[in-house]
Amino acid sequence: MSSIFEGFLSTPEVMQAFGDHSFVEAMLGFEAALARAQAKCGLIPEPAAQSIVGTCKVELFDVDKIVRESARSGSLAIPLVKCLKETVGLFNPSAVPFVHYGCTSQDTIDTAMAMVTSKALAAVEADVKRSATALLTLAHRYADTPILARTLTQPASVTSFGFKCVGWAAPLLRSLDRLRVCAPRALKLQLGGTVGTLDRMNGEAEEVISLMAKDLGLSRPVSCWHNQRDEWVALGCELGLLTGSLGKIAKDLVWMSQFEVGELAEPIERGRGGPSNMPHKHNPVASMVALVAAQRVPQRVAALLASMPQEHERALGAWQAELAEWPVLLMSTHGSARAMAGALPYLKIDAARMGANLAAMRATLSSEAAQEWFDPALAARAGDLTRAQLALVNWSEATNLAPAT
Amino acid sequence: MSSIFEGFLSTPEVMQAFGDHSFVEAMLGFEAALARAQAKCGLIPEPAAQSIVGTCKVELFDVDKIVRESARSGSLAIPLVKCLKETVGLFNPSAVPFVHYGCTSQDTIDTAMAMVTSKALAAVEADVKRSATALLTLAHRYADTPILARTLTQPASVTSFGFKCVGWAAPLLRSLDRLRVCAPRALKLQLGGTVGTLDRMNGEAEEVISLMAKDLGLSRPVSCWHNQRDEWVALGCELGLLTGSLGKIAKDLVWMSQFEVGELAEPIERGRGGPSNMPHKHNPVASMVALVAAQRVPQRVAALLASMPQEHERALGAWQAELAEWPVLLMSTHGSARAMAGALPYLKIDAARMGANLAAMRATLSSEAAQEWFDPALAARAGDLTRAQLALVNWSEATNLAPAT
Amino acid sequence: MSSIFEGFLSTPEVMQAFGDHSFVEAMLGFEAALARAQAKCGLIPEPAAQSIVGTCKVELFDVDKIVRESARSGSLAIPLVKCLKETVGLFNPSAVPFVHYGCTSQDTIDTAMAMVTSKALAAVEADVKRSATALLTLAHRYADTPILARTLTQPASVTSFGFKCVGWAAPLLRSLDRLRVCAPRALKLQLGGTVGTLDRMNGEAEEVISLMAKDLGLSRPVSCWHNQRDEWVALGCELGLLTGSLGKIAKDLVWMSQFEVGELAEPIERGRGGPSNMPHKHNPVASMVALVAAQRVPQRVAALLASMPQEHERALGAWQAELAEWPVLLMSTHGSARAMAGALPYLKIDAARMGANLAAMRATLSSEAAQEWFDPALAARAGDLTRAQLALVNWSEATNLAPAT
Amino acid sequence: MSSIFEGFLSTPEVMQAFGDHSFVEAMLGFEAALARAQAKCGLIPEPAAQSIVGTCKVELFDVDKIVRESARSGSLAIPLVKCLKETVGLFNPSAVPFVHYGCTSQDTIDTAMAMVTSKALAAVEADVKRSATALLTLAHRYADTPILARTLTQPASVTSFGFKCVGWAAPLLRSLDRLRVCAPRALKLQLGGTVGTLDRMNGEAEEVISLMAKDLGLSRPVSCWHNQRDEWVALGCELGLLTGSLGKIAKDLVWMSQFEVGELAEPIERGRGGPSNMPHKHNPVASMVALVAAQRVPQRVAALLASMPQEHERALGAWQAELAEWPVLLMSTHGSARAMAGALPYLKIDAARMGANLAAMRATLSSEAAQEWFDPALAARAGDLTRAQLALVNWSEATNLAPAT
Repeated sequence: MSSIFEGFLSTPEVMQAFGDHSFVEAMLGFEAALARAQAKCGLIPEPAAQSIVGTCKVELFDVDKIVRESARSGSLAIPLVKCLKETVGLFNPSAVPFVHYGCTSQDTIDTAMAMVTSKALAAVEADVKRSATALLTLAHRYADTPILARTLTQPASVTSFGFKCVGWAAPLLRSLDRLRVCAPRALKLQLGGTVGTLDRMNGEAEEVISLMAKDLGLSRPVSCWHNQRDEWVALGCELGLLTGSLGKIAKDLVWMSQFEVGELAEPIERGRGGPSNMPHKHNPVASMVALVAAQRVPQRVAALLASMPQEHERALGAWQAELAEWPVLLMSTHGSARAMAGALPYLKIDAARMGANLAAMRATLSSEAAQEWFDPALAARAGDLTRAQLALVNWSEATNLAPAT
Repeated sequence: MSSIFEGFLSTPEVMQAFGDHSFVEAMLGFEAALARAQAKCGLIPEPAAQSIVGTCKVELFDVDKIVRESARSGSLAIPLVKCLKETVGLFNPSAVPFVHYGCTSQDTIDTAMAMVTSKALAAVEADVKRSATALLTLAHRYADTPILARTLTQPASVTSFGFKCVGWAAPLLRSLDRLRVCAPRALKLQLGGTVGTLDRMNGEAEEVISLMAKDLGLSRPVSCWHNQRDEWVALGCELGLLTGSLGKIAKDLVWMSQFEVGELAEPIERGRGGPSNMPHKHNPVASMVALVAAQRVPQRVAALLASMPQEHERALGAWQAELAEWPVLLMSTHGSARAMAGALPYLKIDAARMGANLAAMRATLSSEAAQEWFDPALAARAGDLTRAQLALVNWSEATNLAPAT
Repeated sequence: MSSIFEGFLSTPEVMQAFGDHSFVEAMLGFEAALARAQAKCGLIPEPAAQSIVGTCKVELFDVDKIVRESARSGSLAIPLVKCLKETVGLFNPSAVPFVHYGCTSQDTIDTAMAMVTSKALAAVEADVKRSATALLTLAHRYADTPILARTLTQPASVTSFGFKCVGWAAPLLRSLDRLRVCAPRALKLQLGGTVGTLDRMNGEAEEVISLMAKDLGLSRPVSCWHNQRDEWVALGCELGLLTGSLGKIAKDLVWMSQFEVGELAEPIERGRGGPSNMPHKHNPVASMVALVAAQRVPQRVAALLASMPQEHERALGAWQAELAEWPVLLMSTHGSARAMAGALPYLKIDAARMGANLAAMRATLSSEAAQEWFDPALAARAGDLTRAQLALVNWSEATNLAPAT
Repeated sequence: MSSIFEGFLSTPEVMQAFGDHSFVEAMLGFEAALARAQAKCGLIPEPAAQSIVGTCKVELFDVDKIVRESARSGSLAIPLVKCLKETVGLFNPSAVPFVHYGCTSQDTIDTAMAMVTSKALAAVEADVKRSATALLTLAHRYADTPILARTLTQPASVTSFGFKCVGWAAPLLRSLDRLRVCAPRALKLQLGGTVGTLDRMNGEAEEVISLMAKDLGLSRPVSCWHNQRDEWVALGCELGLLTGSLGKIAKDLVWMSQFEVGELAEPIERGRGGPSNMPHKHNPVASMVALVAAQRVPQRVAALLASMPQEHERALGAWQAELAEWPVLLMSTHGSARAMAGALPYLKIDAARMGANLAAMRATLSSEAAQEWFDPALAARAGDLTRAQLALVNWSEATNLAPAT
């Protein structure tokens, strides 16, 4: 029931993660964890918790109805909690008052969002690692292969293809490093109760938070983040940076794979990249996906940043805008990461053509100028730099990448 | 298979219009119209056209498969045409070469986009008219009702509530006027063939275009618009302006419906606007939806504008980014228009509270200052302006609005 | 006192128009026109008006001080009016109470903004006409010159260079057409008084508005637009569309002027486009300026749209954000228009290279495929379309363009 | 020579930092440091270096001319280097070939940008600390003061004003923490030579880089970052987050300082926040500045992210767009930080009114509901949380903040 166009720009797993079924399941996961923790702390009766936990199974719910009713209440959690109470009531009416106890809608929604984002992020990281590995391997192999270096789109001098590859890889490795810091800060439990003070938890709030965070595999928040979204949006920014770095690679690939340049090409797959009746067409569709993401994601990040001033204890409009923008950010990011991970290991590299373009450029110049700026031997310097940078990669620890052998 | 969060921020009809089923249906509608027109012009055999037209029924196709395969080809039209050829081939193999004859993927996709947008836009306009009518009715009724005028959020002087209402209505009427001009320019057939020259149409291109445009209820393009998107994006801008004007109304409603201000309230519906356990909560959720749209839509418009520089005869990345951003723009716009149309006719107006707030302000000032700036009689001037503006509304012709009686 | 980087991305005249001196001059122009009109209507004494008008000369004011003090008051008009009263008081103390009579800061600022924008817009339009003329001339000349048509960056078939040129020109002509409609709606007097009701004008408001609008060369508003900005922002959107269309041209120029493609080049000027020590570098800097604008302007438009929900009778934050974004929008737009107007008439076209690239593509294919998709004769169809579109241009009336002879 | 509107939205020091004089000075600082380092490494003769260093004084240059000529060359560094060579040539012609030796324009510009940004950032951080200190002091003082907690703009329950304050402070402290990590990664020397390989440095590149970085007080880059901008744009994102967090504070202040709410007010200064003829107006202009920044900065960040895909070894368009967007980002950020730092320590808090609003809410409810949701005693729980969070602040080390006594 949404735009048909995300299909070829994202991935099934991330679209699924933010789909109705998965999100309702995550919200139920939150409610179950809450009941478990509150029972452990004596806040609600153990039998009530058992009924609630036993009922928190997505198969028991009419997911479509919950989504449909969210339009009336302006919140996904309100119909979820209502349905959960009704269903718990069928089995154990005395447990009903303990459903969603001391909690607020935003607790459920934000936590569920962190849960599904966590899955999506793991998929992103795995694909980025595949791309980085592929690029480092290419860097090693083509460290000394001369190629025109182009500034402001015009030939400027000589570099090596390997140096370009290590340049593409470096920001991916940095993104992985930074994600290791900022993801745990963002992927944390939300639990504040009505207005952020957890006033119904009878002094057990800290313990409930600890138990739930552990149960759900999320970080333990220092305080609730209902209306202070900086650590959450910081993760969004980080994904924006990653998509930008992937877009840089894609853009270079496209420029280099023009017919007239011909220095490389995306792998050819049957049924991919061209209409069947045009045998000469070989469209760089993986790069296209990454470029689309690089063009769309900045607008998503802007929307997240613009939604940060959230008035009072829970915003009207700004929070909901943030919620709606977030999934598309992840979808685009993974679309890009997956597309590049699928293309980079299988690039068709044409080193001869690189040399030919360089020679063609030399041929237009006086021999002096040709020698000063376009001596193929200049690639050696680029090769040395490439090797120096490859040596800095901490293959095993830092990125779990396989070394480029 | 998309974000769960659009559900309460958009409307079923627009989400459906851009959903898989509806869009594939529209693409098939394009292919059928093409075959009909080409047969009429003698470009393809009449029996082939009959087979193609007869096959262009969405029920005959596996929509999910087409969407799934779009991920490989990077285009929705490629698998659509492939499936259409296969299905036509089952009934009439000799018609297969005449499927999608002389056409390109972008012809199919852009035209289908115009078709579904046309439907969505009609829904938007209908709801905007409902809002405008409601506001003009309020303007008439409350033309002379004094209310604090506030600048930079602080009381500045006196106006009338009717004057506020006519001020809210005016940009909606202007939006409807402008849409009447720019929508037909945007909602036009796309037909250019591989590179925009329709070189396979044997001199019948103009006639094919005329027939198809008429058949599909779209405008006849002066030229194909594969890579020149200004008139299309202009419609997007117009929706941005509309959403901004609706957002202005929503923002004022929210400020005025604060507990401490209390000058009006959104209509109360059971199950809407508040959790069941908090009887005191009456959240302005219609305004919320309009504010969310006003916050998200500018980013969509930015994305459309940023995608305008589309290289060569069909862009890689920019076109596809535009396609993906477009549906959400319509979804948000109609979400906003529908929410306001649902709330404005039923607003609870508290004229006494308006007067009380004004009196409270007067009470803080010297009598001289109170009289200079906060004399309730100042509302009369606002009332006269309100009536003057109401007199300008061309109720029947310009907007098909019912007069405010 | 602002960023050094606008210098090479904008133009002196637009930067000047929004500079301190020019803007203060425009605000004084507003105050003088107000006094003149109010005296004519008997609202203020004629001698007072004469003193005010005589004092509204920018040379009499310490512009830097006004700008500096705006930081304290949060408004440019507050220190302007204060200084104006002081200066009027030196010559004619009895006139002081009639300075800025019945007016509000926003009246002064918005009107001044419309005045300086009007000048900037005239400069934009003149340069767009130069570009359009140049492109139509090229379209005429190269109507039948074969060139590779490229889709998704890969050769797809054949078109003509003239067809590309008329495709570049068409949206510029459409922009000029649309500006003729939307500019007068935007460039209008602002006059509402404290809260939009002009309650101090003693029934003479309509007459004051008419006189002032005529005096200042602006449109007469139907109502004040303090907090309803749709017609103003609509002009901003229009500039966004124009910049996008110019960016499309620039992008194509850059792709076509790559060393390996070589189908055209920006004109070479001494000292332009390359460091002196690299004789081989010929950077397309005019295209660069247009591309920068096409990348920045969408964000400006987004900011304008996002600022539309302006609460109550004058917004806190949203209005001021709009004011600050507006000048950069005009600066970028004219930077782009000027750069293209400077480059397009002097493009170096290499028709032979266009042919050679086409031949090279043919050489990679079977003769059958080469003939089907890359027959140079396909350019004739593009030529016919080019001529048909050139015939539609209303050279004299519609655009004041000289016909392409 | 730029928009008059930045004046009241930014600060003199940051506008100056990115002004013509300061930026040319920074570029000269780069050239001097380069000469010093290269002489030390034996790459250029010591006397040449002395001549160059001695000439790199901004007073010796016609700054306006350099800026003016940048419009022709499309780069600030090209006219700078040209003028520098001319001026060096007047004193020591033999030194001319050693000016800007082995370097490229982007080295000069990016490094100068890092230098002036470093200054601007120090100003931002100082003001954020002032704000954080003020808020923590308020948090301490009002830890137990009851106030309505509002969700979706409607009263929801009770919190304490101190808890709101510590909630405002926390993201500022986190911003300072994150800046400590990301600023050094961004504020680094750029030195790559023509195409990033420093091929003219004869094996001394590493040493030259180390010397220059130390000399200029910048970080030492692992590799040149000509076309990989992630660490630079990451700083931009961080400023976006900071501005968002400041905007949250400002928004709450505005809502709370409405006449009808009256729970606090910005400090009153003579000549600030209101026209002299309206004694009742007390506009929250500091909040206005922060809100304007929070509305504009997301668009700046989007522009930076969108500019990340920079083709080849130096981008045409994307790099220059980034350069132009960057200064306004810093200007807005510091405008916001300064405005809040000027207002927060002097806020007028009206605890009685907080209590009165709470009482008014209670009065509308049944006593049971009033007690359940609006018992003033609920503030105690918020107070405990406030104290717990204050205890976590590492006053001396982490932020150099004075403890709230």
